[in-house]
Amino acid sequence: MIIVFKQGAAQTDIDYVQRKLTEFGFKTNVSDNNGRVIMGAIGDDRALREKPLFTMPGVEKVVPISKPYKLVSKDFKRTETVLDIKGIKIGGGNVVVMAGPCSVESRDMLFYLAERTSNAGAKILRGGAFKPRTSPYAFQGLGEEGLKYLREAADAHGMLVITELMDVRDMDLICKYTDIIQIGARNMQNFRLLKDLGSVRMPVMLKRGLSATMKELLMAAEYVAAGGNNEIILCERGIRTFETETRNTLDLSAIPVLKSMSHLPVVADPSHGTGRRDCILPMSQAAVAAGADGIMVEVHNCPEEALSDGDQSILPDDFDVLMKRLNIIANTIGRTLNI
Amino acid sequence: MIIVFKQGAAQTDIDYVQRKLTEFGFKTNVSDNNGRVIMGAIGDDRALREKPLFTMPGVEKVVPISKPYKLVSKDFKRTETVLDIKGIKIGGGNVVVMAGPCSVESRDMLFYLAERTSNAGAKILRGGAFKPRTSPYAFQGLGEEGLKYLREAADAHGMLVITELMDVRDMDLICKYTDIIQIGARNMQNFRLLKDLGSVRMPVMLKRGLSATMKELLMAAEYVAAGGNNEIILCERGIRTFETETRNTLDLSAIPVLKSMSHLPVVADPSHGTGRRDCILPMSQAAVAAGADGIMVEVHNCPEEALSDGDQSILPDDFDVLMKRLNIIANTIGRTLNI
Amino acid sequence: MIIVFKQGAAQTDIDYVQRKLTEFGFKTNVSDNNGRVIMGAIGDDRALREKPLFTMPGVEKVVPISKPYKLVSKDFKRTETVLDIKGIKIGGGNVVVMAGPCSVESRDMLFYLAERTSNAGAKILRGGAFKPRTSPYAFQGLGEEGLKYLREAADAHGMLVITELMDVRDMDLICKYTDIIQIGARNMQNFRLLKDLGSVRMPVMLKRGLSATMKELLMAAEYVAAGGNNEIILCERGIRTFETETRNTLDLSAIPVLKSMSHLPVVADPSHGTGRRDCILPMSQAAVAAGADGIMVEVHNCPEEALSDGDQSILPDDFDVLMKRLNIIANTIGRTLNI
Amino acid sequence: MIIVFKQGAAQTDIDYVQRKLTEFGFKTNVSDNNGRVIMGAIGDDRALREKPLFTMPGVEKVVPISKPYKLVSKDFKRTETVLDIKGIKIGGGNVVVMAGPCSVESRDMLFYLAERTSNAGAKILRGGAFKPRTSPYAFQGLGEEGLKYLREAADAHGMLVITELMDVRDMDLICKYTDIIQIGARNMQNFRLLKDLGSVRMPVMLKRGLSATMKELLMAAEYVAAGGNNEIILCERGIRTFETETRNTLDLSAIPVLKSMSHLPVVADPSHGTGRRDCILPMSQAAVAAGADGIMVEVHNCPEEALSDGDQSILPDDFDVLMKRLNIIANTIGRTLNI
Repeated sequence: MIIVFKQGAAQTDIDYVQRKLTEFGFKTNVSDNNGRVIMGAIGDDRALREKPLFTMPGVEKVVPISKPYKLVSKDFKRTETVLDIKGIKIGGGNVVVMAGPCSVESRDMLFYLAERTSNAGAKILRGGAFKPRTSPYAFQGLGEEGLKYLREAADAHGMLVITELMDVRDMDLICKYTDIIQIGARNMQNFRLLKDLGSVRMPVMLKRGLSATMKELLMAAEYVAAGGNNEIILCERGIRTFETETRNTLDLSAIPVLKSMSHLPVVADPSHGTGRRDCILPMSQAAVAAGADGIMVEVHNCPEEALSDGDQSILPDDFDVLMKRLNIIANTIGRTLNI
Repeated sequence: MIIVFKQGAAQTDIDYVQRKLTEFGFKTNVSDNNGRVIMGAIGDDRALREKPLFTMPGVEKVVPISKPYKLVSKDFKRTETVLDIKGIKIGGGNVVVMAGPCSVESRDMLFYLAERTSNAGAKILRGGAFKPRTSPYAFQGLGEEGLKYLREAADAHGMLVITELMDVRDMDLICKYTDIIQIGARNMQNFRLLKDLGSVRMPVMLKRGLSATMKELLMAAEYVAAGGNNEIILCERGIRTFETETRNTLDLSAIPVLKSMSHLPVVADPSHGTGRRDCILPMSQAAVAAGADGIMVEVHNCPEEALSDGDQSILPDDFDVLMKRLNIIANTIGRTLNI
Repeated sequence: MIIVFKQGAAQTDIDYVQRKLTEFGFKTNVSDNNGRVIMGAIGDDRALREKPLFTMPGVEKVVPISKPYKLVSKDFKRTETVLDIKGIKIGGGNVVVMAGPCSVESRDMLFYLAERTSNAGAKILRGGAFKPRTSPYAFQGLGEEGLKYLREAADAHGMLVITELMDVRDMDLICKYTDIIQIGARNMQNFRLLKDLGSVRMPVMLKRGLSATMKELLMAAEYVAAGGNNEIILCERGIRTFETETRNTLDLSAIPVLKSMSHLPVVADPSHGTGRRDCILPMSQAAVAAGADGIMVEVHNCPEEALSDGDQSILPDDFDVLMKRLNIIANTIGRTLNI
Repeated sequence: MIIVFKQGAAQTDIDYVQRKLTEFGFKTNVSDNNGRVIMGAIGDDRALREKPLFTMPGVEKVVPISKPYKLVSKDFKRTETVLDIKGIKIGGGNVVVMAGPCSVESRDMLFYLAERTSNAGAKILRGGAFKPRTSPYAFQGLGEEGLKYLREAADAHGMLVITELMDVRDMDLICKYTDIIQIGARNMQNFRLLKDLGSVRMPVMLKRGLSATMKELLMAAEYVAAGGNNEIILCERGIRTFETETRNTLDLSAIPVLKSMSHLPVVADPSHGTGRRDCILPMSQAAVAAGADGIMVEVHNCPEEALSDGDQSILPDDFDVLMKRLNIIANTIGRTLNI
């Protein structure tokens, strides 16, 4: 931690802060920069992070040196983490595709989509069973019945299942049917839930919150890792900005940046990230071209009839085209589409 | 719902959409605006809101007419809701002040702060017992012990208690000790939790999410109201913007705008909204001057030693000054500080 | 400037950066923080600010110590700047009100509004003569004729004139008629224009850009001050956020924060800042309660007929009410409304 | 334009608005949607856009139907515009690369970079001659000397020149040396400048403002087109969001969305859009994969010594790699890299 004092701060104030830092167990060194005192606090920043240093007399700015996350950082582990889930690899040069409907609507529909997407090369079947929605008056999901269909359809086509855990009380139920627990953007900073995930033996995909910085996403991942669960996938799914033509702004620069900060795999979700069907192909291609370890995409055989988010789903035929392109793009940048 | 078609949309597309709307139970009327077809769908918009109309052929824009929330709107109830909690009124011209430390750190400290703040006119004692934090390595709160102290200190000074519910599993525990359940910004769209709150007989203060629009805050309140709980307070606590001098941007215009949209009381939290001690007095004054039904402010006897958020707390002496000013400002605009 | 190196950065990289800093004329001191090297560069940060230090090998983070602005900072001048324009004071405890129509539409209308607003206590008459608009198809202003009306109406009622300079080619024309040059949000980073303003003998009101941080606003002011013109007023007029109920989000915390960073007076513009007539009174009151040195407000005798921005104007009668309230609020916080 | 009235609006208010619309030259039709009156105003929306309809009694919401831009829209011209500048095509399936240093620093450096980038396939040489910067204390460019070097270096390698016009007073000077006038993000809403560009016989590349919506970018382009200049290129260069790991957030979804709204070519600038060298390759690849008609990228032979923006430049060797990849990616999606 570096403490920058105000120009001309009183010596008594500087002494006070130095004494406090010593009490907190930090060594200090003090230098003068053209009349402005700068104090370095040597030790583990995280112990200082919650101290109200900014409030202390004479202090102008407090600059942390070490990162607020550790286990998930590249400093801690330099090689990319590669998850191996029932033989399907995520991370480390592999590009994996997760596809399926927004919400599970019927058994037939799900089997059809599992067949089509797995034929095209998707390895992971996505679908929501619980859909608490922005409006209390909208379709809320099939519940456990939906989970069963997901499991059966995935098994029938050698796919993995990923589905969202919305509420901590559903943990056992979700774990019974899924291979990867998805944590949605709205729960990214549900710290009690993150702690619980730390003690689960199940990979977790953590979606970036709508207003979460990349650093905050990594701190959320740190919660899970600190509990002992290292199988974490990060997911960029759009952040909230002033632009209204798209539902969110898919921040693809998060892919290279997160990968420079962390050893965890990073995937992108162009369906939620844009909310527009006509953006899904271009932005899926762009995500893979930017180095994503995977994409999650909504596919629906009849988007106009979808019970949720039909506006952001593509047709199985479009998905076929997309997979062919992703394969070439991945190869072009030295990576392999996992098909 | 109004559907605007693309310039020169095919008649077959227009017919298709009209047929679909009829299937959904809507009457339609069609008009032509310089070659652009506009179709009105007469009926309850909320039933259409989840339909992927935007995806239908020829459609350029879909404009909802009715609001996505109903029970909490001014259309539904024109008079301002006034909560009466053990004789303390919130809303309807009353301005109420909630004060106390960020987190409960000790019994002595809490009793001291309850005495000082209630002497100055605060009616509601705030304090966190559970503090799951952005960092897994920070102080996490006293738990039930903290709740007991809150109840005792409030009772000793005739105050109400408000404290945050972080996890649905703490519902009974929190309800045992508090008078108002606070739902934090991060849980504002935790829809399962909102549903549970609908069936609790306890007032709820709902904080606006960091990236939530006012409309979304009202839709979250609608979830609670739809469950049968009408005792809801809305709280503006800062939104996330590009500005970094303040922790968040306190959006005081939310006060007059939310009050024009809804009959519910609206309070502001300048401590979390700015994250800076030097902003608390000016922004508390500003909130009351903008017509807030109350403010929530962090007060600490020794902010430099606070275990959490000391940077955004003011001293009891500052609080005395603030209350005197708020009293005059409230009177100036025809409202009454509840002291 | 402080350079934080990556954990385990190579000694050759550290040496390279140190050599470069020495070449740039900086002294350095190096310390080790648990295996992470931190290098302080002692000297004038501004000379380093444009050097691509971040790109140098082994560097993780570059932290500036001194501020990018100097002349406008509190460090440079601790007492508040008070402008005295023909006897009307701005800054230093005085609260001044600028009122008038969005654009000058006719001589009669302007004289009527000057009379009404000056009777209520406004000291400065505002009005646009050139109105290049977002749409090329909208009313574009009366030009020099409008400027003449402004001057005459202000003189008739002992008011000052403030009007916007949109294009550098209008400089002489604007200076001929106005007392304060207003620079709009869109020109806040028009650096050539800012330089030109540095050599003009005329006070300048600089509006914060829609996406400008407070620091950037101060750097824009620094441009003007560096040219020798110290008569600068800062104006908060709303920033762009994701919220759409208001046109912009008026960031009132900018008032106390800018005043802690700079000695310049700070005013607020609730008309442009919210774009809603029903927000003007509450937000004007809030701005003064937050410590603003003034407000700028649009007043129109018939907002429904206004040729521009009628949606964000109040009636003269509302303005009378507002001024009475502002007077009391200013007094409450130890300031004086300049009426 | 559609006017939605408040639930239970008075008939006199509805009549008033209808009378006003008739006065403005609009036909109206009125329908009732469950007690809420909706009024359609048939005519050219743009004439109504500046009228303060929202302020009229009983009005709840005003919804424009036609777009605020016309000449640049897909409705007006369905086929993509292809610019042909001295035989180099931009738009219509061609992908063009603009490369060069941030600012022109010396003749030698520029000739070297022109050679390297043109050898790799770049067709357009970029470089700034005037660099008014955020800080008044930074390098400000070589001026006309820089423009000469640009012209000579481009001619020597059969490239076009693109350079930024910062101030209207430089128009003739810039036009003398350049092939494409670049308008920077900060001038995107400098409407007087946009008007002047309308009457120039020179292609214009318009960069999206930091806080500009796509719609506003198109309205800025409309200004140029309305003046008679149809040779316009749109450029996505990052928007301002809360994220601070990157300088801006490059909004690649703007590529497919702008292309769905307009017939104009769309390019992306990953250098300014991210401000990070390690993002330039991934985000350039992503831009082309998303369907961009070109990219603009900063290349510098010694970024550590660059006088401006070295942190966001890549080396000529990296550029070679990039061009090979872009060629394959463009082909994959049915487009052609113009090399």
